[in-house]
Amino acid sequence: MAPADRPDAHEGRPTLEVVAAHAGVSRATASRVLRGASNVSEQAREAVLRAAQELSYTVNRAARSLVTRRSDSLAFVVAEDEQRLFGDPYFAGILRGAHAATAEAGLQLLFVVASNAGDRAQFETYARGGHVDGALLVSLHGEDRLPSRLEAMGVPTVLNGRPFRDDGSLYSVDSDNVGGARAATELLIARGARRIATITGPLDMTAGQDRLAGYQRALAAAGLAAPASLVAEGDFSHEGGARAMARLLDTVPELDAVFAASDLTAHGALQVLTERGRRVPDDVAVVGFDDVRLAELAIPPLTTIRQPIEELGRRMAEVLVARINGGHPDLATVLPTEVVRRRSA
Amino acid sequence: MAPADRPDAHEGRPTLEVVAAHAGVSRATASRVLRGASNVSEQAREAVLRAAQELSYTVNRAARSLVTRRSDSLAFVVAEDEQRLFGDPYFAGILRGAHAATAEAGLQLLFVVASNAGDRAQFETYARGGHVDGALLVSLHGEDRLPSRLEAMGVPTVLNGRPFRDDGSLYSVDSDNVGGARAATELLIARGARRIATITGPLDMTAGQDRLAGYQRALAAAGLAAPASLVAEGDFSHEGGARAMARLLDTVPELDAVFAASDLTAHGALQVLTERGRRVPDDVAVVGFDDVRLAELAIPPLTTIRQPIEELGRRMAEVLVARINGGHPDLATVLPTEVVRRRSA
Repeated sequence: MAPADRPDAHEGRPTLEVVAAHAGVSRATASRVLRGASNVSEQAREAVLRAAQELSYTVNRAARSLVTRRSDSLAFVVAEDEQRLFGDPYFAGILRGAHAATAEAGLQLLFVVASNAGDRAQFETYARGGHVDGALLVSLHGEDRLPSRLEAMGVPTVLNGRPFRDDGSLYSVDSDNVGGARAATELLIARGARRIATITGPLDMTAGQDRLAGYQRALAAAGLAAPASLVAEGDFSHEGGARAMARLLDTVPELDAVFAASDLTAHGALQVLTERGRRVPDDVAVVGFDDVRLAELAIPPLTTIRQPIEELGRRMAEVLVARINGGHPDLATVLPTEVVRRRSA
Repeated sequence: MAPADRPDAHEGRPTLEVVAAHAGVSRATASRVLRGASNVSEQAREAVLRAAQELSYTVNRAARSLVTRRSDSLAFVVAEDEQRLFGDPYFAGILRGAHAATAEAGLQLLFVVASNAGDRAQFETYARGGHVDGALLVSLHGEDRLPSRLEAMGVPTVLNGRPFRDDGSLYSVDSDNVGGARAATELLIARGARRIATITGPLDMTAGQDRLAGYQRALAAAGLAAPASLVAEGDFSHEGGARAMARLLDTVPELDAVFAASDLTAHGALQVLTERGRRVPDDVAVVGFDDVRLAELAIPPLTTIRQPIEELGRRMAEVLVARINGGHPDLATVLPTEVVRRRSA
């Protein structure tokens, strides 16, 4: 017999009668309160809930969630598969920050991997069941309907990164991607580079779009050309960076600098540049984005744009907790980035 | 106003009256069933639950969990912090396997990081609230009371790795750690090594203990000495492997082989051996354990013991689902390992 079915599994749990007596109401009234009925006075409701709490009615937490609609947990949903998830230290950092802030708020953080339609449907069902109080959504691609679907069922959300189509209805916490990318490109211009390529992130993500926009704005402000041949789409991964770098060198062999939209991407680019005999930074200067540990370990160590990854996760959790508690946090939170000079540019 | 508090969030949900009418019972009886009271005939109970199901009583999943004690979710609890978790591809693999099997069973997998006492307490509260149907416990250290505490509250568990103190009460899925470590050591003996060191895993984990035992048995069977000076404790990490290798070379410079209890450990050892001018495998042969991707990428590529990491996660989920469904799976499942020959030994 599975333990969940053991007849004794719920022994010792206060009965409805005990809760009712403690609250000084009838059994029927206690029952009405605990199943969330509305035909109960506020006074009786409070007395019953207080009694249930004082009697450690915790085994019956599910009943409480009927009443308060709280599960005391937040989901951290990442729309990537395990390989991407564990391959990019960005996710470890943002999870760590969200986990710390969630624990400080006395809530359980539930990490959910949802990279395909089946996983999404599963999670929506779970959320609809009242098992999470809100959801942090990380690494969404394209015009993802998950956030609006969760909001519609009463589960508040906070996005990592501004919404793909921003109609002012969704909460988000983001880095200043445009400003960071612009600073990276300006740094390359300042050191004399004139044929500056970029390896973008996925362009179905706002982080990818915004870092490209920052690069383009810096070039435009300096009066430099930004032909399409200097732009290669990557996917934030090492392998994507290596492939894009190879394409760029084939097409524009005279390029003298690269802004890569992530440190993993920059690392893949460094590898290909080294293999093809280009010296970094003398022949080709490289700037990354993120400032993960790999940036320090790279050969040469990467000049990069630091985004406050743990702080992003922490702020996401804080905004979500504020929403759940009925507060009015800012719809969009944008955290600053900073240039970290090392040797690659 | 937070969406969870919107007055219209539960519109369209069938009322208790509708469910009662559909079931052909009184409102009071339906209420008793849906709050899990016992003074109801089995016939009425079934009628009400069927009616609730047919009427798509899904918004009120929390009520269902009161009755069936099901949340349709499994927790995947890892007793390591984010740094270890994301630093070792073992966790990605076991999570991927567990996730696939959980999704196939139509259940939600919730990944929980629980590396300290606060996280444990938080998770116990969440589990006690009926929000998970069972828990997969990964990377437990020492005599951890979490599994028995969860079992005592009616939440079935399955451990990754045999229990630290095995009293026959806990379910586990493990690799053949003793057999794998023995095969690794025999391989080193067969290629002529005579001063074979080992860098262990954490010795407060059964995987660490069992791999050490396999090494010791192989040496004993071959009549070779296994002095304490040849055993250095590691922690499955790259850094731990590098530190242990440095200590071993200082103490026993004449060692001619190393069995490392994980591929990350072996990789750290390779790095130190190379730095100190030892050729691998000519001066010192090295065998790892796991067969993660790093084993192939190492210089030289690592000979290692492959354990079926994804399959471990899958089998853990399958055993847990069987338990939840009232089945009688084996208490202990042990999966075979195999030698993968590359160039390091």
